[in-house]
Amino acid sequence: MLGVCYYPEHWSEDVWARDAQRMAEMGIRYVRIGEFAWSRIEPRRDHFEWDWLDRAMDVLARHGLKIVLGTPTATPPKWLVDEHPDILPHDEQGQVRGFGSRRHYTFSSETWWRESARIVEAVASRYGEHPALAGWQTDNEYGCHDTALSYGPEDLKAFRRWLRLRYQSPDQLNEAWGSVFWSMEICSFDEVEIPVRTVTEANPAARLDYWRFQSEQIAAYDRMQCEIIRKHSPGRWITHNFMGFVLDFDHWAVGDNLDFASWDSYPIGFVEKFPFSEEERNRWAETSHPDIAPFHHDLYRGVGRGHFWVMEQQPGPVNWAPWNPVPKPGMVRLWTWEALAHGAEVVSYFRWRQVPFAQEQMHAGLNLPEGDELSVGGHEAEQVGRELRKLGDLPASKRAPVAMVFDYQTDWTSRIQPQGKDFRYEELAFRWYEALRRLGLDVDFVRPGEVLDGYALVVVPCLSIVDEKALAALRKTNAKLLVGPRSGSRDRNFRFPENLAPGVLQELTGNRITQVSTLRPGLRENVSGAIKGGAVRWREYLQSDADVLARFAKGDPALTKKGNVYYLACWPDEVLLTSLMRNLAQEARLEFLELPEHIRIRRRGGLTFAFNYGTEAWDVPSGAELILGEKSLKPQEVAIWR
Amino acid sequence: MLGVCYYPEHWSEDVWARDAQRMAEMGIRYVRIGEFAWSRIEPRRDHFEWDWLDRAMDVLARHGLKIVLGTPTATPPKWLVDEHPDILPHDEQGQVRGFGSRRHYTFSSETWWRESARIVEAVASRYGEHPALAGWQTDNEYGCHDTALSYGPEDLKAFRRWLRLRYQSPDQLNEAWGSVFWSMEICSFDEVEIPVRTVTEANPAARLDYWRFQSEQIAAYDRMQCEIIRKHSPGRWITHNFMGFVLDFDHWAVGDNLDFASWDSYPIGFVEKFPFSEEERNRWAETSHPDIAPFHHDLYRGVGRGHFWVMEQQPGPVNWAPWNPVPKPGMVRLWTWEALAHGAEVVSYFRWRQVPFAQEQMHAGLNLPEGDELSVGGHEAEQVGRELRKLGDLPASKRAPVAMVFDYQTDWTSRIQPQGKDFRYEELAFRWYEALRRLGLDVDFVRPGEVLDGYALVVVPCLSIVDEKALAALRKTNAKLLVGPRSGSRDRNFRFPENLAPGVLQELTGNRITQVSTLRPGLRENVSGAIKGGAVRWREYLQSDADVLARFAKGDPALTKKGNVYYLACWPDEVLLTSLMRNLAQEARLEFLELPEHIRIRRRGGLTFAFNYGTEAWDVPSGAELILGEKSLKPQEVAIWR
Amino acid sequence: MLGVCYYPEHWSEDVWARDAQRMAEMGIRYVRIGEFAWSRIEPRRDHFEWDWLDRAMDVLARHGLKIVLGTPTATPPKWLVDEHPDILPHDEQGQVRGFGSRRHYTFSSETWWRESARIVEAVASRYGEHPALAGWQTDNEYGCHDTALSYGPEDLKAFRRWLRLRYQSPDQLNEAWGSVFWSMEICSFDEVEIPVRTVTEANPAARLDYWRFQSEQIAAYDRMQCEIIRKHSPGRWITHNFMGFVLDFDHWAVGDNLDFASWDSYPIGFVEKFPFSEEERNRWAETSHPDIAPFHHDLYRGVGRGHFWVMEQQPGPVNWAPWNPVPKPGMVRLWTWEALAHGAEVVSYFRWRQVPFAQEQMHAGLNLPEGDELSVGGHEAEQVGRELRKLGDLPASKRAPVAMVFDYQTDWTSRIQPQGKDFRYEELAFRWYEALRRLGLDVDFVRPGEVLDGYALVVVPCLSIVDEKALAALRKTNAKLLVGPRSGSRDRNFRFPENLAPGVLQELTGNRITQVSTLRPGLRENVSGAIKGGAVRWREYLQSDADVLARFAKGDPALTKKGNVYYLACWPDEVLLTSLMRNLAQEARLEFLELPEHIRIRRRGGLTFAFNYGTEAWDVPSGAELILGEKSLKPQEVAIWR
Repeated sequence: MLGVCYYPEHWSEDVWARDAQRMAEMGIRYVRIGEFAWSRIEPRRDHFEWDWLDRAMDVLARHGLKIVLGTPTATPPKWLVDEHPDILPHDEQGQVRGFGSRRHYTFSSETWWRESARIVEAVASRYGEHPALAGWQTDNEYGCHDTALSYGPEDLKAFRRWLRLRYQSPDQLNEAWGSVFWSMEICSFDEVEIPVRTVTEANPAARLDYWRFQSEQIAAYDRMQCEIIRKHSPGRWITHNFMGFVLDFDHWAVGDNLDFASWDSYPIGFVEKFPFSEEERNRWAETSHPDIAPFHHDLYRGVGRGHFWVMEQQPGPVNWAPWNPVPKPGMVRLWTWEALAHGAEVVSYFRWRQVPFAQEQMHAGLNLPEGDELSVGGHEAEQVGRELRKLGDLPASKRAPVAMVFDYQTDWTSRIQPQGKDFRYEELAFRWYEALRRLGLDVDFVRPGEVLDGYALVVVPCLSIVDEKALAALRKTNAKLLVGPRSGSRDRNFRFPENLAPGVLQELTGNRITQVSTLRPGLRENVSGAIKGGAVRWREYLQSDADVLARFAKGDPALTKKGNVYYLACWPDEVLLTSLMRNLAQEARLEFLELPEHIRIRRRGGLTFAFNYGTEAWDVPSGAELILGEKSLKPQEVAIWR
Repeated sequence: MLGVCYYPEHWSEDVWARDAQRMAEMGIRYVRIGEFAWSRIEPRRDHFEWDWLDRAMDVLARHGLKIVLGTPTATPPKWLVDEHPDILPHDEQGQVRGFGSRRHYTFSSETWWRESARIVEAVASRYGEHPALAGWQTDNEYGCHDTALSYGPEDLKAFRRWLRLRYQSPDQLNEAWGSVFWSMEICSFDEVEIPVRTVTEANPAARLDYWRFQSEQIAAYDRMQCEIIRKHSPGRWITHNFMGFVLDFDHWAVGDNLDFASWDSYPIGFVEKFPFSEEERNRWAETSHPDIAPFHHDLYRGVGRGHFWVMEQQPGPVNWAPWNPVPKPGMVRLWTWEALAHGAEVVSYFRWRQVPFAQEQMHAGLNLPEGDELSVGGHEAEQVGRELRKLGDLPASKRAPVAMVFDYQTDWTSRIQPQGKDFRYEELAFRWYEALRRLGLDVDFVRPGEVLDGYALVVVPCLSIVDEKALAALRKTNAKLLVGPRSGSRDRNFRFPENLAPGVLQELTGNRITQVSTLRPGLRENVSGAIKGGAVRWREYLQSDADVLARFAKGDPALTKKGNVYYLACWPDEVLLTSLMRNLAQEARLEFLELPEHIRIRRRGGLTFAFNYGTEAWDVPSGAELILGEKSLKPQEVAIWR
Repeated sequence: MLGVCYYPEHWSEDVWARDAQRMAEMGIRYVRIGEFAWSRIEPRRDHFEWDWLDRAMDVLARHGLKIVLGTPTATPPKWLVDEHPDILPHDEQGQVRGFGSRRHYTFSSETWWRESARIVEAVASRYGEHPALAGWQTDNEYGCHDTALSYGPEDLKAFRRWLRLRYQSPDQLNEAWGSVFWSMEICSFDEVEIPVRTVTEANPAARLDYWRFQSEQIAAYDRMQCEIIRKHSPGRWITHNFMGFVLDFDHWAVGDNLDFASWDSYPIGFVEKFPFSEEERNRWAETSHPDIAPFHHDLYRGVGRGHFWVMEQQPGPVNWAPWNPVPKPGMVRLWTWEALAHGAEVVSYFRWRQVPFAQEQMHAGLNLPEGDELSVGGHEAEQVGRELRKLGDLPASKRAPVAMVFDYQTDWTSRIQPQGKDFRYEELAFRWYEALRRLGLDVDFVRPGEVLDGYALVVVPCLSIVDEKALAALRKTNAKLLVGPRSGSRDRNFRFPENLAPGVLQELTGNRITQVSTLRPGLRENVSGAIKGGAVRWREYLQSDADVLARFAKGDPALTKKGNVYYLACWPDEVLLTSLMRNLAQEARLEFLELPEHIRIRRRGGLTFAFNYGTEAWDVPSGAELILGEKSLKPQEVAIWR
């Protein structure tokens, strides 16, 4: 189904009804509103203005539209900031990040929690049972603009409280952090500082705890909002719209609060955000890389325990990337169908009409800035609306044959101590995903510790800290299990494991790592054997009692196998990665199909969807019974078959 | 005529007379002094020491030299800074920019205005009627070292005052800025903050107002100095020495205060400042790019309403660029003649003698650091002196056939919201100028709104905000009028125009822009038709009822014509730009001459000047009646003919 | 002899004895301890815990190991920082550099001196006469992590005190600094500011004085520690472990306090620190560049007046460079032998066992993190131990035939006013050293002003300020003396010399420099004559009454000779530099041997050592009487012959 983001407060009230009518006519069912409207809801403390919002909701309701209401906490108004400047966040340099855009608060401020609870209570109690209300969105894009972590006085206070609970005594903290190193020991929790702005590298264990502390605060803050909403809004669901490529907090934990996950899909903007090569960025500038949106769809389907929305879908050029090209004709439709193929329940465009003022005025909408004229993307959305009506309900998404274990903490640990400057977890996971998808395989994202029943192949690109639950799940699976480099390389306190890496995975993998080499960009080590290619960035030196399937040039093990468990001892270059995933797919007896770089397929129930991101046509498999599109899948086209 | 900058306070008094005599002998007529001498004029508050300056001026006068006196406000002394630290500027991070170099004040400080008035009054009342005094220079290089904008508490106070006057009520400010977006509304002007250090992008309308506010302050501050000077110094002119490639404030507005404009010409240093390619930087490292000095000569002839000086002429290697090569032999002479060709009334070298201490000791002068020995540049200046004496008075500069509308605010708007990272107004204007000059055309710079009578061709590289006066002038002209991309793309409040871009230019151009694409460096769109080449960086999607002269690859209009008005819907690459300007010159029935990249020509009255920046000779047109130079114009040589 | 760094406080007491026994067995004689243990020695103010350290020293002593005790001042504990936050350093932005790593103090704090004296007194008085104590290390790696200079309120106070002593009156300071320029004059020392955070470049003379002030403080602080130690520890030596490629303070001056010098040799980490080309970095990533360790060995042999240790020797991959590759097998042994070849008296590995927690857990040790298992580097160290036992005492190092005059102040002056962005003294000196070593020549480093008797060739890559003593030494030498560009280019107050550069060297060299050109990376000037190649980065224009041996393309002198003095008027590219050094070696009648880029040789007494850093074997000279290694010197191998 389709949705749209709408800001009645941006438009004259006399266009609301026409807007609502046109939305309904083009097949839109859900309208998200309200998430940045605090200054209109409460222009002065305790002075609430509900009338306009009452009327806006009524207009939408009258046209049969369902409402998603956002809590307005991403934009505390100026009067509140002036009353309580302690809610403002601080950057790593200790500088206040001020009022004037959005997300100007720290999760550590007790004042902020109190004020957030107050406004959420106000909104939820007024509209919680509104007949047109379908559900809620908490806040907006936690962590966007580097706002997951703040480094100010309120943060320090909250961090000390958190450490007191976690460690009970300074001695236990000193022991966990290895503070004896460099005389970093403390005698009281009040001696702890935020681990930034030190002369050289700060204690990595302290940094990891700081990250966990902030991540846990976000989940708890979100839970606080959810509890208030649930009290006032029985029977309505709650979601949050996560932002792409933000790994600064644990999305799995926030997902626990929610009825389902949603995310904001800006496929083209993200091309400049992910560390692609310049060549890739040029190739995919006007379509996006064909795995960016799917990667997130699959991730948030996981976070949402099988259910997710695209809450904001890019409808044309945006404004916030270094360059903002117009998407190739057809891409807005393609992205929409692709989201549905990956199981999205609703795809909601951002936004109904381009706003002709303030920060995002160069961001396209489904309509041009003035009047009732659809943009290029608007016409494509309209077409999807028609196609959806014609096709009727889509079958449910099934469990994929492949699972990827995805872990936020691994991102934090590798950013805290990369050891090699280009060891980026996000990139490793994305490239593994891409390689699987190039084989036409569907992939589920699973949380470490989740039961892995029913998968033929489980891949763990890296899991730096393996807790007991995660270990148990990996031990228990009968799937072919591929474990990537640096897994198990730290214990829960960010200490080197006593038995060396991969720590608790030694028995499972049959390996013990005695040395690690990080390789600057010009360096590469050859790998040959069952798989062939090169190791770059990171390689390990293994003592192994497993079978050695491939070796580095001098004979050391590069890929090992012990029972159903494979271990890869390096960062694979593209050739090696392709070879590896093909090999594993064969070992797991998966049917696969090597796709051109610009084609991707995905199944939903009995349907197969195909998408063409490139410049050349591709023939759908013979025997396909098409229900949308043509046998020759043209550039920027979609095909669906049984 | 020639001039020189001199610092009697840097030298033992016993060399002054010999210096003055040698200046006079080499044909120097004007000497600028005093602009950094506050600590010598007033070493302690209200303790003035005039004697040394009296004597210095008398020595110069005795040798027939005319004096240009600078107000010393670019260098407030330490005792004043310690008394009033509120005069210090703040950088964008809010950090104080301290004492110890120059320009350490903010235009927002009321204390600073009071103290400036006091010292200007003191100097002007003492020397205003000195018989050798020709005129005044206010301050020194406004805006140099990023000093046009400051971001401290004094700035905030002054900004709030300015906004109160401009908007009368918070509601009107909220409306103008679109503050409803992201709940940025304010209830009182005291809630406004400086639009920096926000979590993500600040409101662009607030940023533009902040820029206007600071720019207006500079013009008003300069006007304050001028008014004091005029009171005490009847019959003397006033100028200011602008710095090259500083667009942070509106030079047209400061020009309004002045009798004529002047600028500081460091052609080689600027090669590293402008965004040239590395290849261009290498090619022009030792001569400068052949359009850098001319671009500024023509700009400041415009700002000076037909009159300008070069107040500081590079005399050899300087000290402040990342690399500081020795200019090729002949270049100091070439630059001097070139300035004169573009209409300069005086070319004044910086400086008489290289100073052997402090920040600029590696900056060449006309003389070596000690004694009476001319440097290489000094000998070249001496040669120009002889040549000038031989040639006599030069004819007056006439109106050029081509006008370029040049606008500072467009620079600010495109830096506030570039949309594509490499959309730089300064670069666009410079490249258009270069293309015109490669056709041997003379160019005038005109202010938006200025009457355009008498031009055959008017080019507007970009004019983001078109006010009524500017629109009237464009409507009225009969010249061929070329309007560039992004013109009319915002209203006065930095809002998207209601009728879409180009806003108020829709009727004139016959175009309406529905989408804009910004293209990363690897991308290029083909253009063909009446002009051929590529679009890079920026392209627009037009609905047009004008004639379409050239199209993008898929058929959309790239160049349109409605009556005498041409509209270019993209950033042209070099090939397209050359093709465009040749086409326009033909349409405007201009005689032109395609010059090699290293040759430029310029007319002054009935004389034509030619300059060779390259490594190969060039033959002057047959029939030229040479009055300086030879038929074969050798590298680094000058020719003048009738 | 071999040594090792050990941290008893990091390990359970029950492993100490076994560790000590294993050290002794593998030939280790010295153990450095204690330098980061303040929080264990004095966990609370005046509450000293000596027992553990008493026992640790006794255990080591019992196994015949000699102890090097470090003063723990590099790591002031948190309770002290909280008591006296004024000891913390500030960065150039004025921001506090906080507790949480190491070196978090400024040398300017009087509190810090008092506290340092107190802890040094406590440790020295307790252990000064311990029978196993061989000697002391003061602090740890002065200047590491950019800690030589601090920019806070304590620094300003101390700087004003220092200036008062140096200049006596504000007028004399104004005169020395040329403060009249830009009205920078002061009336009282309390008006002086730290020369940072100015609007544009600060006064270079002030900056140089600031650097000298901080450098002198470091030497005085070190002297304070030495005096306390000497009082309590008669008969024991004192050293300091300098860090590679740190030129921020004058190591010669600190060396004056010490009995000998030592340094911390991390050959691979330094590959990323020095400005090598990417191609070089890739080539030497896993071995280090073959001149990095030797350069420092020779430098610290000079600083130690003929005596030095390697206090910390890299034993495998480290953790702190952008990439940290595993050294090629054999390199740990090679580096150890190489240090000995250059005269090291002890090579002490960092560290005994890899620490499994905190910042350096990815830094290899001689043992793996847990238990008694040698790492790859540990096995190589063990082999060196065996080889040393077999070979017996090595002969003493003799004076080398070539001396390089090395000066820290020249580094500061060229960083303060580079004039060309890539003029880096460190790089120039290193490249000259490399060129000499490629000819198989041994090199001594000498301090400016040191007597130069006994050298055949003396090279001065650059000596910006030449004091009387340095001039006298250069005048007096009969060696061939090669003086490099920019020498003598400033007087002691950082002023241009009155007679032009090379100032006091004019008579000696026969040259006078009238212009300097700095060349951006794409530019190069040809040089031909007695030497051939190119000038890059920097070239001078000379008036010369010396013989001109080589000229630039247009005929200006590039290399001159007056008596025994050669002057090079440019930064030589690799070809020119090779040509130059070969020419000079011939002129000095030195025997030399052109070595491949991966081979280096070095003599110690009657022995010659050879080292292979590359991938191809090299034959040792015929007639060599080998005492270690083989005729064919394989990659990563060592040979020693008579």
